[in-house]
Amino acid sequence: MDALKKGWFSELGTLWPGEAASLEVEEVLFHERSKFQDVLVFKSKTYGNVLVLDGVIQCTERDEFSYQEMITFLPLNSHPCPKKVLVIGGGDGGVIREVVKHPDVESVTQCEIDGCVVEVSKKYLPNMSKGYDSPKLTQHIGDGFAYMKENKNAFDVIITDSSDPVGPAEMLFEKEYFELMRSALKPGGIICTQGESLWLHLDLIKSMQKFCRTLYPVVEYAFTTIPTYPSGQIGFTLCSTSSDTDFRDPVHKLSDEQIKELGLKYYNSDVHKAAFVLPQFAKEALQESSSNGATE
Amino acid sequence: MDALKKGWFSELGTLWPGEAASLEVEEVLFHERSKFQDVLVFKSKTYGNVLVLDGVIQCTERDEFSYQEMITFLPLNSHPCPKKVLVIGGGDGGVIREVVKHPDVESVTQCEIDGCVVEVSKKYLPNMSKGYDSPKLTQHIGDGFAYMKENKNAFDVIITDSSDPVGPAEMLFEKEYFELMRSALKPGGIICTQGESLWLHLDLIKSMQKFCRTLYPVVEYAFTTIPTYPSGQIGFTLCSTSSDTDFRDPVHKLSDEQIKELGLKYYNSDVHKAAFVLPQFAKEALQESSSNGATE
Repeated sequence: MDALKKGWFSELGTLWPGEAASLEVEEVLFHERSKFQDVLVFKSKTYGNVLVLDGVIQCTERDEFSYQEMITFLPLNSHPCPKKVLVIGGGDGGVIREVVKHPDVESVTQCEIDGCVVEVSKKYLPNMSKGYDSPKLTQHIGDGFAYMKENKNAFDVIITDSSDPVGPAEMLFEKEYFELMRSALKPGGIICTQGESLWLHLDLIKSMQKFCRTLYPVVEYAFTTIPTYPSGQIGFTLCSTSSDTDFRDPVHKLSDEQIKELGLKYYNSDVHKAAFVLPQFAKEALQESSSNGATE
Repeated sequence: MDALKKGWFSELGTLWPGEAASLEVEEVLFHERSKFQDVLVFKSKTYGNVLVLDGVIQCTERDEFSYQEMITFLPLNSHPCPKKVLVIGGGDGGVIREVVKHPDVESVTQCEIDGCVVEVSKKYLPNMSKGYDSPKLTQHIGDGFAYMKENKNAFDVIITDSSDPVGPAEMLFEKEYFELMRSALKPGGIICTQGESLWLHLDLIKSMQKFCRTLYPVVEYAFTTIPTYPSGQIGFTLCSTSSDTDFRDPVHKLSDEQIKELGLKYYNSDVHKAAFVLPQFAKEALQESSSNGATE
């Protein structure tokens, strides 16, 4: 299979061998190699505009809200007062769009390594990049590692909206990165990172949960459904520096009116709770990783 | 895109235009046209053996348990005493395998229209078709409509494990079929049918919920995640003839030991409850269909 052929884009990844998702292409809008990765935007036949980095679909206009709302409101609604937020990655702007909706948020800082993604998104993904218009935002085009080393004890919530652990994002799935995030958090701070799929990457998730438990007193995994990610779902690793945090029961519960005001299409407070209920095979695997961790 | 090309099978469907899922093929094991449909079985590279009917993936050995467990235990655990069960379709045997596990089930009758699917499954999908060995089973190779017309007031639970509403299964998504099932149920009886995906077929689901509400006092929709179905998930339409039924809170709650004894890998009692928690966009759409129905 080739990635772009006969009017179809096919997603072939080393992280999901033997399977591929394809979308029908109406028009290729942008295709260049940035300093960091291959950047492709195409207009699809049925999913709106699609951003692809290094051959992997990052978001489509039709279903992106599921991911952006969940990676944002799971942590923000689990923190008593998320005033200062840091977003690592998220070059398409979708997470920023959601973060600035939260009434408690006073400022959000973004570190995105690839300025090309930001520019491309401003041009071709206006409903995502509109987050960039917020006066609450400070944007750094640069390395999140370097930024966090210089900004200790600074944030209530850190969200990592990264691509998969192959290429530029690989380090964002390692222990050192989770240590660095901890040091950049204020007391009681919370992190939420793109956490891969239960159906495809359970071993990775297990090992991440294990090292996270050595760094944070509360560690959880939640997931959302999203048709254009491999396996149709994606998860989140959530950690808190405070043992009082109960991710499964959000501090901020949203009324129907608030849901409407915030324009949420996927997230609500029941969806928040249900996101932590894992299929039996995954529950058992993560319990194992938990008890292994405790006896070491 | 072609369905079988260069070592890959691609699933192209009129019900999901502009997208296709592909699995890498190791070996085609069976490919013939039965009296009713095109029947293909191949050994995939990473999902085990795969059954395909009329070009659409019905099950893979790697992830089938999600669907089979959920379509079975959602209804069986919502009925106080599911002694007599009818399965329409389910030619691969996976649902029968799950139904006969339930301690309350005394007998299960299966009506599968296509005997070829049963034979092929016995040969190539032994972990699904092992349900066929149960002494609780009576199998009819024939039309479920005809069978139900002759068997009124006979079953506690009816499960419809069908393909999509294109081709032989089209009628199984229509009001007449749901009327017929009602007439085949005993008082307090429950049905559960393959209910398509929230992300792809919300209009179909809305219209089905609407006509179901004219026939049954309790109507719900639940879903499960499954990588090899379009959008990565599939839902279930659940209806009860008794207004006492609360699908969201199962009558039979399974302990960890019972889960283990039954060999369940996806279903547990928390997963049961969470399956009814729908994303905001779907919740709103189905609420609409509910209130429209009430005012008519």
